[in-house]
Amino acid sequence: MPTAAPHRTEHDLLGDREVPAAAYFGVHTLRATENFPITGTPVSSCPDLVVALACVKQAAARANRELGLLDAGKASAIEAACEEIRAGRLHDHFVVDVIQGGAGTSTNMNANEVIANRALELLGHERGDYKHLHPLEHVNAGQSTNDVYPTAVKVALHLVAHRLLDAMNVLRESFEAKAEEFADVLKMGRTQLQDAVPMTLGQEFATYAVMLDEDRLRLEEACDLIREINLGGTAIGTGLNAHPRYAAVARDHLSAITGIPLRSAGDLVEATQDAGAFVQLSGVLKRIAVKLSKTCNDLRLLSCGPRAGFGEINLPPVQAGSSIMPGKVNPVIPEVVNQIAFEVIGNDVTVTFAAEAGQLQLNAFEPVIVHSLLKSLDHLRAGCLTLAERCVCGITANRDYLAQLVGRSIGLVTALNPHIGYERATAVAQEALATGGTVHDLVLAKGLLSKERLQEILRPKNLANPV
Amino acid sequence: MPTAAPHRTEHDLLGDREVPAAAYFGVHTLRATENFPITGTPVSSCPDLVVALACVKQAAARANRELGLLDAGKASAIEAACEEIRAGRLHDHFVVDVIQGGAGTSTNMNANEVIANRALELLGHERGDYKHLHPLEHVNAGQSTNDVYPTAVKVALHLVAHRLLDAMNVLRESFEAKAEEFADVLKMGRTQLQDAVPMTLGQEFATYAVMLDEDRLRLEEACDLIREINLGGTAIGTGLNAHPRYAAVARDHLSAITGIPLRSAGDLVEATQDAGAFVQLSGVLKRIAVKLSKTCNDLRLLSCGPRAGFGEINLPPVQAGSSIMPGKVNPVIPEVVNQIAFEVIGNDVTVTFAAEAGQLQLNAFEPVIVHSLLKSLDHLRAGCLTLAERCVCGITANRDYLAQLVGRSIGLVTALNPHIGYERATAVAQEALATGGTVHDLVLAKGLLSKERLQEILRPKNLANPV
Amino acid sequence: MPTAAPHRTEHDLLGDREVPAAAYFGVHTLRATENFPITGTPVSSCPDLVVALACVKQAAARANRELGLLDAGKASAIEAACEEIRAGRLHDHFVVDVIQGGAGTSTNMNANEVIANRALELLGHERGDYKHLHPLEHVNAGQSTNDVYPTAVKVALHLVAHRLLDAMNVLRESFEAKAEEFADVLKMGRTQLQDAVPMTLGQEFATYAVMLDEDRLRLEEACDLIREINLGGTAIGTGLNAHPRYAAVARDHLSAITGIPLRSAGDLVEATQDAGAFVQLSGVLKRIAVKLSKTCNDLRLLSCGPRAGFGEINLPPVQAGSSIMPGKVNPVIPEVVNQIAFEVIGNDVTVTFAAEAGQLQLNAFEPVIVHSLLKSLDHLRAGCLTLAERCVCGITANRDYLAQLVGRSIGLVTALNPHIGYERATAVAQEALATGGTVHDLVLAKGLLSKERLQEILRPKNLANPV
Amino acid sequence: MPTAAPHRTEHDLLGDREVPAAAYFGVHTLRATENFPITGTPVSSCPDLVVALACVKQAAARANRELGLLDAGKASAIEAACEEIRAGRLHDHFVVDVIQGGAGTSTNMNANEVIANRALELLGHERGDYKHLHPLEHVNAGQSTNDVYPTAVKVALHLVAHRLLDAMNVLRESFEAKAEEFADVLKMGRTQLQDAVPMTLGQEFATYAVMLDEDRLRLEEACDLIREINLGGTAIGTGLNAHPRYAAVARDHLSAITGIPLRSAGDLVEATQDAGAFVQLSGVLKRIAVKLSKTCNDLRLLSCGPRAGFGEINLPPVQAGSSIMPGKVNPVIPEVVNQIAFEVIGNDVTVTFAAEAGQLQLNAFEPVIVHSLLKSLDHLRAGCLTLAERCVCGITANRDYLAQLVGRSIGLVTALNPHIGYERATAVAQEALATGGTVHDLVLAKGLLSKERLQEILRPKNLANPV
Repeated sequence: MPTAAPHRTEHDLLGDREVPAAAYFGVHTLRATENFPITGTPVSSCPDLVVALACVKQAAARANRELGLLDAGKASAIEAACEEIRAGRLHDHFVVDVIQGGAGTSTNMNANEVIANRALELLGHERGDYKHLHPLEHVNAGQSTNDVYPTAVKVALHLVAHRLLDAMNVLRESFEAKAEEFADVLKMGRTQLQDAVPMTLGQEFATYAVMLDEDRLRLEEACDLIREINLGGTAIGTGLNAHPRYAAVARDHLSAITGIPLRSAGDLVEATQDAGAFVQLSGVLKRIAVKLSKTCNDLRLLSCGPRAGFGEINLPPVQAGSSIMPGKVNPVIPEVVNQIAFEVIGNDVTVTFAAEAGQLQLNAFEPVIVHSLLKSLDHLRAGCLTLAERCVCGITANRDYLAQLVGRSIGLVTALNPHIGYERATAVAQEALATGGTVHDLVLAKGLLSKERLQEILRPKNLANPV
Repeated sequence: MPTAAPHRTEHDLLGDREVPAAAYFGVHTLRATENFPITGTPVSSCPDLVVALACVKQAAARANRELGLLDAGKASAIEAACEEIRAGRLHDHFVVDVIQGGAGTSTNMNANEVIANRALELLGHERGDYKHLHPLEHVNAGQSTNDVYPTAVKVALHLVAHRLLDAMNVLRESFEAKAEEFADVLKMGRTQLQDAVPMTLGQEFATYAVMLDEDRLRLEEACDLIREINLGGTAIGTGLNAHPRYAAVARDHLSAITGIPLRSAGDLVEATQDAGAFVQLSGVLKRIAVKLSKTCNDLRLLSCGPRAGFGEINLPPVQAGSSIMPGKVNPVIPEVVNQIAFEVIGNDVTVTFAAEAGQLQLNAFEPVIVHSLLKSLDHLRAGCLTLAERCVCGITANRDYLAQLVGRSIGLVTALNPHIGYERATAVAQEALATGGTVHDLVLAKGLLSKERLQEILRPKNLANPV
Repeated sequence: MPTAAPHRTEHDLLGDREVPAAAYFGVHTLRATENFPITGTPVSSCPDLVVALACVKQAAARANRELGLLDAGKASAIEAACEEIRAGRLHDHFVVDVIQGGAGTSTNMNANEVIANRALELLGHERGDYKHLHPLEHVNAGQSTNDVYPTAVKVALHLVAHRLLDAMNVLRESFEAKAEEFADVLKMGRTQLQDAVPMTLGQEFATYAVMLDEDRLRLEEACDLIREINLGGTAIGTGLNAHPRYAAVARDHLSAITGIPLRSAGDLVEATQDAGAFVQLSGVLKRIAVKLSKTCNDLRLLSCGPRAGFGEINLPPVQAGSSIMPGKVNPVIPEVVNQIAFEVIGNDVTVTFAAEAGQLQLNAFEPVIVHSLLKSLDHLRAGCLTLAERCVCGITANRDYLAQLVGRSIGLVTALNPHIGYERATAVAQEALATGGTVHDLVLAKGLLSKERLQEILRPKNLANPV
Repeated sequence: MPTAAPHRTEHDLLGDREVPAAAYFGVHTLRATENFPITGTPVSSCPDLVVALACVKQAAARANRELGLLDAGKASAIEAACEEIRAGRLHDHFVVDVIQGGAGTSTNMNANEVIANRALELLGHERGDYKHLHPLEHVNAGQSTNDVYPTAVKVALHLVAHRLLDAMNVLRESFEAKAEEFADVLKMGRTQLQDAVPMTLGQEFATYAVMLDEDRLRLEEACDLIREINLGGTAIGTGLNAHPRYAAVARDHLSAITGIPLRSAGDLVEATQDAGAFVQLSGVLKRIAVKLSKTCNDLRLLSCGPRAGFGEINLPPVQAGSSIMPGKVNPVIPEVVNQIAFEVIGNDVTVTFAAEAGQLQLNAFEPVIVHSLLKSLDHLRAGCLTLAERCVCGITANRDYLAQLVGRSIGLVTALNPHIGYERATAVAQEALATGGTVHDLVLAKGLLSKERLQEILRPKNLANPV
């Protein structure tokens, strides 16, 4: 940072430093950018977290004012600055790296400084003139990184998780529409990749919708855990330096500001060191990833071809598939969702490691937990929407081919089990396989069942929905 | 298997095989033992799974009899055989390997054969004389591995999970007892391994109890998902070959037999291919592991010494710690729990991989999922009990040393923040660090606060429970 | 342990305990069995580790005798006891749990005690009469668990890894035999599960053989790291209590006894705390697992059918596949290998966690690392052999069907690229797809190439081996 | 993209699309940006990959020209465009998302289009006027994504890996300097977090340097595997459409251009589908992460304090540690490196999953493998440098305190083992612990050793470097 540019001097326990005059952040943030040149991705890359920090700081200011700990002028200025950040302004002054040492201290310091300097301006002072309004003594009053940061993180996760819930619903609806469209398309079910017994393609697609519904419930449960916060615990959960009523008052203000019904943890000491809600959320995201990946594997398998594969369904072409093979079209949308799933599963291991590494009264590794969770949530959201809109919506079925496979299938013999017994059915199946014949013809030829009985048993509706 | 030993001949689609006459299992089981010589650990190593299989087979027999699909004599014999297995007999005939190909088919076959042969004996027939009672046509009537096996697995997991819940409760109580015992022991809290602000040792131990309580709630939620079964779905969930009322009737019998309030899945096709409940359970076990491991890390840290470490608490000695260092005693109980946690976390990745690998209408990899979950549940249970009984119960505190650390601590300065401001408090802290002085003396020397005010602020009770 | 049974009294720092008179182990082992009731699996379940411990103890005795630190009578008795263990005797006295606290101390204590008591017997004394020969002062002379245990572990891993190398070779040969058998079977290659360009089935199977060859090289490299030991470092690598020449002399004896060319680590302090060689070995096993799993996925995919799938190859049937679907045969052998792979991948995460958790001069979590590695190695070995012998050897190809798929394939158009250009080739491909026509007919109909030229380009040999 | 902006029309198999006139990329890239709105991070975020792609395209152009397959004018224009990209220009036209479906096709298409359009300009044509020079027919001549992309990826990984090797060396040197500085500082070693036997602080720091040296060797081995490429294999490794000499000629040009001694894989079909080298590299990065994390854990532990912890060393303060606790300084640099390690370990699981998911002749999931590896390499590099420069270089030791701990230590008794025996040494240790006395005094009081003998044994140099 060339000192020729206009600057102001700030001070911390390590001494004086020149901060760019144009910066809303201060000396603590400056040092953090120098200490953590890791990913090059600033916390502003997650606007939800920046907004959530502003919400928490606003709630704290309101609470401190209400409790008589902050005068109205300072509180109003802090609130106004927070409002601006919530409206999307000043985000580019949140410059510390997403992966940083220190349990989020630098992110909290960054927020304190930006808010203080903007509030100073609103009060008619110079940036950096902290005697009028101090980042730590006023903006951070009654707070510690150790309660503010996880609280803000939870607000942000809640916002992002609900966008994922919405995207999952879009995807679910796309599968449901296909389930309805394909409700009468009979096909062979498969277990262990071997022909099993008949079902409908509608049943197959309904499965994916049901799966998403279940996963949405799990995600909502995880969100409920996320709504429990430790605001008011300050440094280690004992609430040192906070007013006795601060925890409750600040929480209520934060609920009002965010529209999220937040709860205070029953034991703030435990809540301050506990990463359990993050591990749980990550585990649920992993579950969603696992099932989305399985779904995409199925879609790629069923559409495998066009001539040397399953060829049961067609995914809509969205781009040329090859730089060398003309006319080739690949299942690139499911493929990208598979990759998102793999990323989410890896992120879960990162979260697990970071959570396990917490020591005594704090987990110092929350930044990488938060970064991992926000990536997982956001990429899953993008994946669900892309999958719905660029793939599932345009899927078509090769109905005639599917019907033909059922007719030729040896798996039909299973339906005869109750009528001719497992052992005789096995003999029919083996003969069909050896000779290339059909179950239908062999059963008639052997006189095992009458034609009418056989046709009744093998009626499509009876096969796929026997009950 | 030497053919000299007495044997009987059985038949399957691959031809005839000689089965030891003394074996209750048959040809399908025999082939499976030859195909899967992997771990050397038979399914009988998990008696809960063997018992659960017997419960399911008994419920199925009752349902089929009630629906007129199985005559009373056969049904009674099957039930009697199942009762014997539930009572712990015949388990050593469940010989297939815990890791096996085929989604549990071999385990189901093994159960069918043992039950059929025992039932044949009870009916006065020879083992292997399947024309009187057939493993597949009667014991497995209306069933498929694909609904029977996951249902039995869920019953077994439920049993084992509840033993873990009990063990977690024992551990929780041991921490709570210590929290009470240490309620008045003031000590320094630490964040990021650096001295922070005071708290009580009781608060620290209460944390571990609270954590276990929360994890027990999560495990109970996961158990609720486990109570949803797909019995009656048969091969792929369409219920082919099962009586229309079979799913409901068999489920009710199984609930009655096991005492577990089971629910039928809403969509049996989805339920048959879905490994979501297993992934969720594994995720919760991972969460428990993460937090147990963190707790054990703390215990090892706080007891580190005896002379060159934290030395805050003493773990009870349970064995000599070293073959070379006389008198050395190590925290071996927390260490073994750490290792269980690492195993559980690895098992979660195994479960994740196996769940993701499911294809189309079935997950063929359930055996390794089940094996991993059962190990995780059982080892966590053992770890909780060992930790409670051989470690936590005997922990003592070095009270004087702890009090002394608080008195000398620079972290006390935090409590002065609201009274002298962050910047002046920083200066006091820096001077204390540089000179080796105490916060108390420096504040008085500088005249920042009166002696009375200072002593009031620094009263132990105010520090640890300021609110 | 009922005190009615004959017993002897032993003593350690915690006091007196009664040890069963029949036991070769002593008080340290007894306490360990009580402290670690975790898996129920004793270290004797890994005979290689028991043998390796005996080798190390024998080498130490020889070295101490040679250096004048152990008299000939005691040394001979210790050696004789070790020889018996190496020959497979006394293993059932190695009773401590495979997962145990304490960096292997209990396993080392168990070995010291069994060897001491057997040596006492050979010398004509009673078991437990340690004044004549002491488990720690003589059997463990100049040793610490912290150098003895990892050294024995490495010897054991080396033995087990070489069995895996052999099994991989068996599997490689089975793939190579198939590659040769199928060298002239033309088929469609596939990328992204879509028809790509032609190749031979021989090329496809050769791939699996090449892959195994490469993985064997990686495993051999990992074995080389395993051959570096820290014997002689004693407690923390400084060699305290060992004779200056002990490290070199004991290592040479151990090399001679085991036949493995062992090296002493350059820095014994580093080597004593370092789990790097275990992490590297685990990473290589994970690599092997990943590629075996991919291979098995391919085999299951190519054999998918019999009528509604790829149907390119047939896996030999090894057991009936279903309890409900007659005649169904499933790819159970590849499936079990997939599951082994998932287990190995999970074990790698366990090893990673345990390795990361090492602190200061030691990694206390080696037992779970060792247990995980030994399982991975052994199960992979079993999987390779089962896959070779029960699956790959019996694979057949559906040659006519494969040829037919190539003839109808649109992917053939790629070969025309250099002759008619990517854009025109794309148009041909699109028309073929839309009309169901063949590339061959469309190119001729459009007059894009002469019949002779076209047939030359599309000659099978030119397609699969163009170079 | 508003059509009001100037644009040109391009065409692919899905029809016409308007591409911004200012864009060097074309229709294929445009569609890819629409299909993959996942992370918002374009491939240009990894300049090494962009440069590597240009290197490969340049090598291909040279080879095709040499083999008479590309005329000199087109080849020169392509080479000139590639040179510009290698010089850092045009990178912002590499706009496809780092996580994308399709095995890198979109990245390759992006490169083909940017190079073609820049070459067209250089030849005096309009962008998009592909009849003069075509992205696929000329820039991509004799190539497929499936050989070009992994080859470029390997070149990029090689570049980035060598930057990591350099950074590891910087870190190693910082540890070595400290090892020398602390060579004579005696301290207590610890095993299992309990006081063990003496060593020097220099030995402790030397350990970290040795560890990095070993890890650098492993990384170099992994780089050697990375130097094996499949260029010339085209679509599936059979080399279809490439000149028989192309693979060798292009590889030699690429080696010359990059300065990296590349090798062609022995079996290009295997090499095209194999992700083994990526798995191996990722495994080595995980190993590096594990050991860096362990090192940082140690640094945090040893510097724990200032008054209620180990307090053995002091990390240089780099920023204020708390928004609430004045004067608190935290180990934020080790903490950020821990978090990088956790991220790398998670990335390894992502890579493992993606590698296992490869099917038949290709792994479609290479983009997420590449993205994960590049992040791991780059963040580890940043972490090593930050750790060296902002932490290790400034570490100081509390020499007096360390000496005092050794003098008081019970662990000294180990050194007496060979002189007074394990059992008597145990008694001394127990008495010291119970009474608070020192080993020195107790041994003298009991007359176990003469004062001279005892002092000789306990001489610092003898304790830490006994051999």
